[in-house]
Amino acid sequence: MNEGVEWALHSCLNLAWVGEEQAVTAARLAAYHELPSAYLNKQLQALVRAGILTSVCGPKGGFRLARPLDRITVMDVVVAIEGPDDAFRCTEIRGKGPGAAPGKPDAECAIAGAMGRAELAWRRELAAQTLDDVRIQAERQAPTAPDRVRRLLGTG
Amino acid sequence: MNEGVEWALHSCLNLAWVGEEQAVTAARLAAYHELPSAYLNKQLQALVRAGILTSVCGPKGGFRLARPLDRITVMDVVVAIEGPDDAFRCTEIRGKGPGAAPGKPDAECAIAGAMGRAELAWRRELAAQTLDDVRIQAERQAPTAPDRVRRLLGTG
Repeated sequence: MNEGVEWALHSCLNLAWVGEEQAVTAARLAAYHELPSAYLNKQLQALVRAGILTSVCGPKGGFRLARPLDRITVMDVVVAIEGPDDAFRCTEIRGKGPGAAPGKPDAECAIAGAMGRAELAWRRELAAQTLDDVRIQAERQAPTAPDRVRRLLGTG
Repeated sequence: MNEGVEWALHSCLNLAWVGEEQAVTAARLAAYHELPSAYLNKQLQALVRAGILTSVCGPKGGFRLARPLDRITVMDVVVAIEGPDDAFRCTEIRGKGPGAAPGKPDAECAIAGAMGRAELAWRRELAAQTLDDVRIQAERQAPTAPDRVRRLLGTG
């Protein structure tokens, strides 16, 4: 999985801690965790296209959350960065070569079905967790994190 | 995900249909679905290392199942080909840069936890399905597949 998923999830939490009204540039979000700024910027643009972040122009510009964390699931962020495709891609090899059944197979391949059920369980779990659930857990584990973010990334 | 997962799963079913006692070469297994033989051979060797297949030497040599399909889970095959690592890899960026908490973080990162729960759901689903479950479903969907495999790959 693209490391941008980890970066994007952390950046969303950081933007929430800074405050939903304040925009932060990709360069400052990247510097906070020593990430490559240009590459993080690409991930943040993907979050904008997915409607998770808003891009703000001008001297006080940057990125801010487009909606509250409790309306963003972990799945939303993963799909924004990784795309909607399943990890397992069925290439229908059962229809190729001398072993192919005559005609086009009408029923789903049993192997694709087995892999698909696992993928569905993964997606269900990701969709059941909002970023606000993750934030609550993060604040339990690192109670000083929100203050640090506000001090280093906030302007207010 | 490596396309070898799809090939390996199909090859295991084909070996079961041929019969557990008969070995089939990588070249013949590959030709059955028009797969690149050298690359399929690499996947089959990985299945041997994982104890799923046995490699048989000699003129009647090749690969055969090391144990019955009901003792091989879909997870076993996926781990044999893809390795044991989670798709999401936490690089602990919360510990890097000016935002890092003092000292080493002792509690698991909340983001890694959220991704890990989804990964666990995926693994559970893959581990709950044996290749025999998949075979039963495959025979329901393609009742002529076992006969085709035996005719084209079998020697008995």
